[in-house]
Amino acid sequence: MSISKSFNKNTSISLELGSGGKASWEFFKDLRKIMKYTGKWKNTGDDAAIYDLGNQKLAFTTDAFIVDPLFFKGGDIGKIAMCGTINDVSVMGAVPIGISLSFVIEEGFPTKDLEKIIKSIDKVSRDAKVPVVTGDTKVTEKGKIDKIEITTSGVGLAKNIISNSGAKPGDKIIASGNLGEHGAVILAERFNYKTKLKSDCQTFIKEVQGVAKFLHVCKDPTRGGLGENLNEIAEKSKVKIVLDENTLPFKKDVVAISELLGVNLFAFPSEGRFIASVSAKDAGKVVKKLQKFNPEAKIIGEVEKGKGVFLKTAIGGLRPIEMPQGKLIPRIC
Amino acid sequence: MSISKSFNKNTSISLELGSGGKASWEFFKDLRKIMKYTGKWKNTGDDAAIYDLGNQKLAFTTDAFIVDPLFFKGGDIGKIAMCGTINDVSVMGAVPIGISLSFVIEEGFPTKDLEKIIKSIDKVSRDAKVPVVTGDTKVTEKGKIDKIEITTSGVGLAKNIISNSGAKPGDKIIASGNLGEHGAVILAERFNYKTKLKSDCQTFIKEVQGVAKFLHVCKDPTRGGLGENLNEIAEKSKVKIVLDENTLPFKKDVVAISELLGVNLFAFPSEGRFIASVSAKDAGKVVKKLQKFNPEAKIIGEVEKGKGVFLKTAIGGLRPIEMPQGKLIPRIC
Repeated sequence: MSISKSFNKNTSISLELGSGGKASWEFFKDLRKIMKYTGKWKNTGDDAAIYDLGNQKLAFTTDAFIVDPLFFKGGDIGKIAMCGTINDVSVMGAVPIGISLSFVIEEGFPTKDLEKIIKSIDKVSRDAKVPVVTGDTKVTEKGKIDKIEITTSGVGLAKNIISNSGAKPGDKIIASGNLGEHGAVILAERFNYKTKLKSDCQTFIKEVQGVAKFLHVCKDPTRGGLGENLNEIAEKSKVKIVLDENTLPFKKDVVAISELLGVNLFAFPSEGRFIASVSAKDAGKVVKKLQKFNPEAKIIGEVEKGKGVFLKTAIGGLRPIEMPQGKLIPRIC
Repeated sequence: MSISKSFNKNTSISLELGSGGKASWEFFKDLRKIMKYTGKWKNTGDDAAIYDLGNQKLAFTTDAFIVDPLFFKGGDIGKIAMCGTINDVSVMGAVPIGISLSFVIEEGFPTKDLEKIIKSIDKVSRDAKVPVVTGDTKVTEKGKIDKIEITTSGVGLAKNIISNSGAKPGDKIIASGNLGEHGAVILAERFNYKTKLKSDCQTFIKEVQGVAKFLHVCKDPTRGGLGENLNEIAEKSKVKIVLDENTLPFKKDVVAISELLGVNLFAFPSEGRFIASVSAKDAGKVVKKLQKFNPEAKIIGEVEKGKGVFLKTAIGGLRPIEMPQGKLIPRIC
């Protein structure tokens, strides 16, 4: 007997469930109806779960990567597998200390490609000073997986945790840079569309650590994009978020690719950016600090009493930005 | 330019590389020639890596599971994904405190099977008191993965660590029970061979913790089986290990399946057993404590000066047991 919505509604798993949008969000809640046991851990619905070690806190997270194509402008599956997980530890306010790396590889996969991926992983690891400390490699028969899948998990340590539910009315919403370039590049490569964009895939440990004490919320808009992030923050913090159409953090080329392919701009993922909720009095200071890393960092909206996420249009109207739905962009990360 | 043996020898990845035997072992060493950076972590070649937190030690490990069939006598992919990772933390002497869970699911996978798997994961989690605290779910297009793949990572805490390299001449080798039943069951199901065996898949936190202070080495003979475990211990501890043919820890049915299918008995994996190296004076005591959990626990061999792993035959000869080679048993865990 099925006990929850996701398990009732469909007789088989759909792509939508892995999209990072509404269906993923519901599935996660339904899964937790079965798996209720979380022991002493906190933040088990956030980007990383938190365990109190007494004198400090342990952050723990995981992510599976099935990006297609494996190599793209600005990165590859190895780089994204490292950055994605390091970033999920970072947004909690923790400093990542180690990564686990698991490969599932299709028999016949070219060793030169695997070597390229491993070197890419190694580079992120050394640059970010987050070692890969444990791993596993499985190989499946030809045709039983598409090329390669990577899962990374990360652990980090923090004195103070930034949760996903701390946004307060009066806060400003800040983006650490322009968003959606990773999604735009993957789509452009798939549809053979020429663009100068490259993936925004990168780590941002120093950026977050430099402003951590000011952040009420910090999240990276990966799968599901800015639309997912803001809706999650609004729901968890029980607030309303209003973006300003005049300060939307999207480059022209990202908007063009979104319009050309008819894919919701607010669902375009980034893999090296974060958004934060910060009190109005600290917002200017935080933006200034972030602009040292990326001049595009800016205030993109504000937090109000109420619920939902809205876009204030140039002519003053309020248009709802909903949790992205549908298949969105399959195999984007 | 390729820099290491695994990357030179083959132009494409073979099933052998994921077998848990000799090729896996060489690949891991070659991979570490590229990925040298391990920071402050220790035991990065053992079942779990160790980070010193000052007052205690953090253990961290990961494993990918692609077992076929997904459901088998004594377990399923969910149970094995939990037990395998919990056990890899346990053999280090650490108490597991949390698990991360990542699914990659094929579009169209039956939701009732996913629900069964999730309930199985939840049961292990509650029984072992190790919560699943963070996770990820990706869905691939039909045909891009075979049904479902699960990766789990685990973290644990320990005062004292049991390494893989502590075996000393004079030690006794102890098995916590009979071995190889998991491998035998998977093979039997694939070849439609009728057997009363069921997978030995289980956790053993209490078993290890009860005798941890006596263990010089502790390892679980999963992929690669007893042959891999003993060769790894002999190599890392720089000792010779001699098993006694009269006390081999294999049930008749496991031996029969090995002979029938021509698969090396010493490569048969267990998913709920461990072997340990213990000083001769403590061996009897340790076996007695372990027999409270499993009456089949016993001394199976001893550690001597020298190198290599050998089987002392009933008529007194010494036959080498080598690191298992070849494709062994694909998709066993």
